[in-house]
Amino acid sequence: MVSKIMEVDYGNAASLHKKGMDAERYVKHAKAEIAATLHVEPRNIFFTSGGTESNNWALTGAALANRRAGMKIVTTTVEHPSVRNTVRFLEEMGFTAAWLPVDRDGIVRMEDLIEAVTTDTILVSVMYVNNEIGAVEPIEAIGEFLSREWPEVWFHVDAIQAYGKYPIYPGKAKIDLLSVSGHKIHGPKGIGFLYVSDRVRLKPLLYGGGQQKGMRSGTENVPGEAGLGLAAEIMYKNLEANVTRMYQRKAELTEGLEQIEGAHVNGKKGRGSAPHIVSCSFDGVRSEVLLHALEERKIYVSSGSACSSSHPSEVSTLLAIGLPKEKQEGTIRFSFSEETTA
Amino acid sequence: MVSKIMEVDYGNAASLHKKGMDAERYVKHAKAEIAATLHVEPRNIFFTSGGTESNNWALTGAALANRRAGMKIVTTTVEHPSVRNTVRFLEEMGFTAAWLPVDRDGIVRMEDLIEAVTTDTILVSVMYVNNEIGAVEPIEAIGEFLSREWPEVWFHVDAIQAYGKYPIYPGKAKIDLLSVSGHKIHGPKGIGFLYVSDRVRLKPLLYGGGQQKGMRSGTENVPGEAGLGLAAEIMYKNLEANVTRMYQRKAELTEGLEQIEGAHVNGKKGRGSAPHIVSCSFDGVRSEVLLHALEERKIYVSSGSACSSSHPSEVSTLLAIGLPKEKQEGTIRFSFSEETTA
Repeated sequence: MVSKIMEVDYGNAASLHKKGMDAERYVKHAKAEIAATLHVEPRNIFFTSGGTESNNWALTGAALANRRAGMKIVTTTVEHPSVRNTVRFLEEMGFTAAWLPVDRDGIVRMEDLIEAVTTDTILVSVMYVNNEIGAVEPIEAIGEFLSREWPEVWFHVDAIQAYGKYPIYPGKAKIDLLSVSGHKIHGPKGIGFLYVSDRVRLKPLLYGGGQQKGMRSGTENVPGEAGLGLAAEIMYKNLEANVTRMYQRKAELTEGLEQIEGAHVNGKKGRGSAPHIVSCSFDGVRSEVLLHALEERKIYVSSGSACSSSHPSEVSTLLAIGLPKEKQEGTIRFSFSEETTA
Repeated sequence: MVSKIMEVDYGNAASLHKKGMDAERYVKHAKAEIAATLHVEPRNIFFTSGGTESNNWALTGAALANRRAGMKIVTTTVEHPSVRNTVRFLEEMGFTAAWLPVDRDGIVRMEDLIEAVTTDTILVSVMYVNNEIGAVEPIEAIGEFLSREWPEVWFHVDAIQAYGKYPIYPGKAKIDLLSVSGHKIHGPKGIGFLYVSDRVRLKPLLYGGGQQKGMRSGTENVPGEAGLGLAAEIMYKNLEANVTRMYQRKAELTEGLEQIEGAHVNGKKGRGSAPHIVSCSFDGVRSEVLLHALEERKIYVSSGSACSSSHPSEVSTLLAIGLPKEKQEGTIRFSFSEETTA
C-alpha cells in the first residue's frame, strides 16, 4: 500500500484539489485506525517523523508550554536516549530534572516517584517497556497516583517498545502524552505518532505551514502515515495470539540460555517482562564477538540497543540495574516479533 | 528502489550486524550522490524529515548554539512559514529579528540587508526561490557581502524551491546552511536534508541515540534517504534540458494568461524568475473557484501555496509585494516540473 500511494496517489494532504483530497482520506483513515487501538479520538493523534521526534516534542513542547507553572521534570535513569538526552537539553535550558533510580530488574519504585513529585513539577516521563532489558514500568500506578494527587502534572509515556505488544488505553491509564514509532510495529521507518490528550496544550517542535492543526507543521508523509495505520490495525487485530507466540519464543530462548555456563538473563522472567526482548550477559566474552558469530547463522542481535550501539558508552539500563562493567560489555539483546520462528 | 529497501533491505543503519551494514551502504551512497550535486563533502549532509524540519533546525539550532555571540536574526517578509514561524518562535524566546521588505517583484534589496546586519547579528536567513511567485533572491551577492564584511555571521538559505532547478554551490556562494525537501524533486515525502558547512556547530533539534554524528538522532529513514539520493542524481543529470523545458512551458502559460482580460502575472517574467512557478491574479474571481474549475480538466493548481492553503491568512508574499486584498484572493499558483506537457 505504501508503494501504491507513492506511485499513484501522490497528492499533498493540505492541497484543496482532488489529488489533495485523496491524500487526506488516507491520512484520516490511518488516524482512525490508530485511535481505535488506543480507545481515543483521531483528533488526539499527531504524526511525527518517528519515536525520537515524538519523545523530543512531548518533552520540549510540554516544558516550553508550561514553564510558568514550574520548571521540574521527573523521569528515570533507564529512559531511551531520545528521552534522556532531551531532558538533559532542557536542564541546559534552565529546567531541573529528578532522575529516579530502578531496582535490579530495571523497575522504578513508586515510593521514589511519590517523593520526587513536588509543587514545581510540570511533567513526569516514564517509559512503558525498557528497550534494553524489557522491564515493564508501573505506568497505571503512576497515572493513578498523579491524577489523584497532582492533577495538574502532565504524564508522558514513551511507549515505543510497548505499543503493539500491550493493550494501552491512555484514558484509563491517565496518560497525557504517548510516543510511538512506526518501524517497531512493522510500519515504515521515518514515521511515528504522538498521542496528545485534550487537556494538554503543547508548544510545537516544528513550525511552518500549520499542518496538523498547527501542532506539527510539514507536508504530511502520506505513504508513511497510511503504512503506520495499517501496521497498527494488523498488530492489534492479532494481539493476543502474537503475544502468546512471542512469550513461547522467549521461554524457549531463556531456557536455552540458562543452560549455558556463565550466561545470565537480565530482568524479570516470563510474563514479568516484555514478550519480545531478552537481554543476556555472558561471562568473559565481548558482545561484538557474539553478535558476529550469531550473524553467521543469520541471527541478528544487538549489543546494547540498536538505537545507540554506535556509542557503546550509552548502555545505561545495564548500569542502572547494577551490572558490573565487564558484564555490560558481554551483554546482547535478542528481540523478536510474532513472525520469529523457534 | 524505495519499495525494494522497505521489503528486502530493512536493516537499521545503526546496527552492527550485516543487515545494518547493508542499510548503511544505501545511506552512504545517497549522501555521496547529494553531496556531488552541491560540490560539497558527504559529511556536510544531514538527513531530516523534510524541508520544514531542515528550516526549523537550521534556525533554532544556529540561534541556540550562538546566543552568546548575539541575539539578532536577519530575514525577509517573504520567507516560507517554516522559516517565518520559527523566527517568530525565536523572538518569543528572546531573540530579535529584522524582517526585510521586498520590491514589487518579491526581491529583497541589498541596501536594506546591508543596513540590517549589525554587530549582534548571528544569522541571516534568505530563501533562494520564493514558493508563491518564484522570485529569485540575490543569494550570491548576500553571501559575498557577508563573507567579506561579517565573516562571523552564519548564512542560511531555504533552497526548497530552488534545489533541482538551479546549480547551487554552497562553497562558492558562501552558504553555511542549506535546506532541501525530498518531495519537491520527485523524491519521497517525509525526507529532506540540511547542508551544514564545516565551520558551523549547530545545536541538535532532535536528541536521542546519537545517529548522524549526534546532530540528528532517530533511526534513519533508509528507504526515504535512498529515494532522495536517487532523485537528486536524476534531477542534476538532466538539469539543463529540464530547466529549458520548464521555461518553455512557463513562456507558453504566461503568454496565454496575458491574453485573458483582468489576468496579471506576478513577479519577473521569463528567466528573471524560477522556471517552475507562475503566480497569476485574476480580477473579480476567487481562487477557489478557479482551482475547482481547473481541477475538472485535471489541472491541479494551488491557491496561495499548498503548504499553507488550509490557512488562507498566511498568503504573505502577495501582501509583501503590495498586491491589494481582492487581488490576493484571486491569485492562483501554477507549478510544474520537467514532466509537464504543453
